[in-house]
Amino acid sequence: MSDRQKSIILDAMGGDLGPGVCVEGAVQACNEAGYPLRVILVGDERQLESELAKHHINGSHISIVHAPDVVRMDDPPTDGIRKKDSSIGVGMRLLRDKTGDGIISTGNTGAVMAAGLAYLGRLPGISRPAIACLFPSENGRTLLVDVGANPVCKAQNLVEFGVMGSAYCESVGGVPNPRVALLSIGEEPTKGNDLTILTHQILTTSNLNFVGNVEGRDILRGRADVVVCDGFVGNIMLKFAESLHGFLTNAVRRQISRNYFSRAGAILMGPFLRRMRRTFDYAEYGGAPLLGLDGMCMICHGSSSPKAIKNAIWAVERGFDGRVNDRIVEGIQREGKSDNPKAGAELKG
Amino acid sequence: MSDRQKSIILDAMGGDLGPGVCVEGAVQACNEAGYPLRVILVGDERQLESELAKHHINGSHISIVHAPDVVRMDDPPTDGIRKKDSSIGVGMRLLRDKTGDGIISTGNTGAVMAAGLAYLGRLPGISRPAIACLFPSENGRTLLVDVGANPVCKAQNLVEFGVMGSAYCESVGGVPNPRVALLSIGEEPTKGNDLTILTHQILTTSNLNFVGNVEGRDILRGRADVVVCDGFVGNIMLKFAESLHGFLTNAVRRQISRNYFSRAGAILMGPFLRRMRRTFDYAEYGGAPLLGLDGMCMICHGSSSPKAIKNAIWAVERGFDGRVNDRIVEGIQREGKSDNPKAGAELKG
Repeated sequence: MSDRQKSIILDAMGGDLGPGVCVEGAVQACNEAGYPLRVILVGDERQLESELAKHHINGSHISIVHAPDVVRMDDPPTDGIRKKDSSIGVGMRLLRDKTGDGIISTGNTGAVMAAGLAYLGRLPGISRPAIACLFPSENGRTLLVDVGANPVCKAQNLVEFGVMGSAYCESVGGVPNPRVALLSIGEEPTKGNDLTILTHQILTTSNLNFVGNVEGRDILRGRADVVVCDGFVGNIMLKFAESLHGFLTNAVRRQISRNYFSRAGAILMGPFLRRMRRTFDYAEYGGAPLLGLDGMCMICHGSSSPKAIKNAIWAVERGFDGRVNDRIVEGIQREGKSDNPKAGAELKG
Repeated sequence: MSDRQKSIILDAMGGDLGPGVCVEGAVQACNEAGYPLRVILVGDERQLESELAKHHINGSHISIVHAPDVVRMDDPPTDGIRKKDSSIGVGMRLLRDKTGDGIISTGNTGAVMAAGLAYLGRLPGISRPAIACLFPSENGRTLLVDVGANPVCKAQNLVEFGVMGSAYCESVGGVPNPRVALLSIGEEPTKGNDLTILTHQILTTSNLNFVGNVEGRDILRGRADVVVCDGFVGNIMLKFAESLHGFLTNAVRRQISRNYFSRAGAILMGPFLRRMRRTFDYAEYGGAPLLGLDGMCMICHGSSSPKAIKNAIWAVERGFDGRVNDRIVEGIQREGKSDNPKAGAELKG
């Protein structure tokens, strides 16, 4: 990691499980990092102090910044801007003012995106920030972009998603020259809809390591490191994948109550079954980065475990160290300068 | 079942595993039906005769109609029409001429659809036939329509998918007044894209039992019996779900080779693990119906097991008995006569 001590801002109030989980995750991140780390908890001072008092912190520094208000899960996204004194509003201003190097929230995704757009703005050359999400795959992970910020997209947006996903995969995932693919319904460039056909043409002549179209089955097979799609398809895929966790859990539960053999088998296979269920539990991956904002932002599931918070803190740190946002801006500039007149027109248009 | 002896046509040449599997499936369907059944095998006479000679048939009748040609999996869809003497072409003409009551093919989906459109035509009032597919759910099955025939759709098409899916669920699945939902990225009518927003409006005033929008997670949770979406989203979902089978299989295999405890657990839980993997194995459900053609058509996976063929034969029979196509035509007529001017305009337009 880098030599300078980084500060990660944590909106500790947005989740479903109360601030205790966020504080515990922050403590784990600090104590297990192996080097000094700084975490700034944002939220109700009294609650956070009482949670923090339960833990011992080694060599790192966890501070608290008070925010009297909270954006709840069912509040409209605009509350991310309207509620100026909410933990997400206060946290975003800390990031804007460079008091921190990145922010994590377990809160309302729409509100975090709205606050991010209002306080941080977009990176130069990015028309639409996106939400990315890691899917499990046979040989590692696949980053799907966008999973819900942009239900309706132009080809230009999908190319930007490719640039942003590629930069993230390289910086945070440590994948050199990530393979970028376009989600469609056939490998042939002409398969799909108008959006995928045009996007395929532009990606082919881009500077990305474009490996062509992939189908729904190729995500788990790990045929690409980054898969781009519009936020409508991506959100449906994400929520379907998330529901597998509950589906497998219920199936195992029914099986265990069936007979003694199954119960014995389930006990012996316990670690495996838990791992299988976790494979599709989005919280396990830390969080979903918001890409394209002028500041590192990550959203964790509302019911994140301390481990998920810890992983998210480390991911944001790696992203900052790996200069994700600089790489995104450089990538977008490369596409703008591309020889391909079609790409140029699209990206400028 | 009904009193008249039904004839099901089986294109026995299209699959990946050779005609033996189709013949075995036909024999199982006949011997296990509990009443006399007629199956017409279409394909290479010599091969089919030699396969059929390996089996004993009780009280039912399996005949062979020779077709010298085959449409292969990687042939273009138009070969379904161009190759007139292929097993799918000959089979479709038998269905058109009422020699059979329904057809099943393990072949090239695009070619079967093309041949169906050419030889059978569409049902009155249907603008676009669709492919439906059963997904597992917590409380039974969910029928997703369309899973690939129509990558680009209008609201009118999605409403037709709802009518067709509802008729199929009622006739073949025995579900009274099936719950029809629209796949989107939020329950609110205004969430999604232009297509889902307009479709939601029309479905609300339709005669279907419309339960609103559902999200990706609601498919496995069984919140609806029929879920409509365009064929782009549906195909990506289908292929993702299909890939879970291989993903789980490989995970179990890796686990078993890990240590003796896991191996013992896997043996004890064997039936469960197999069932879990099968849950996402599309072949287990028999097949995917092509809805909207003037004749009952079902496509089975190219690598279908005899059991899948057997289930498909029975499903086509139930569909014929349950008058699926009559119900579809009645449903479309009801929508056309609807009081909703928007729906009327859309459906006539």
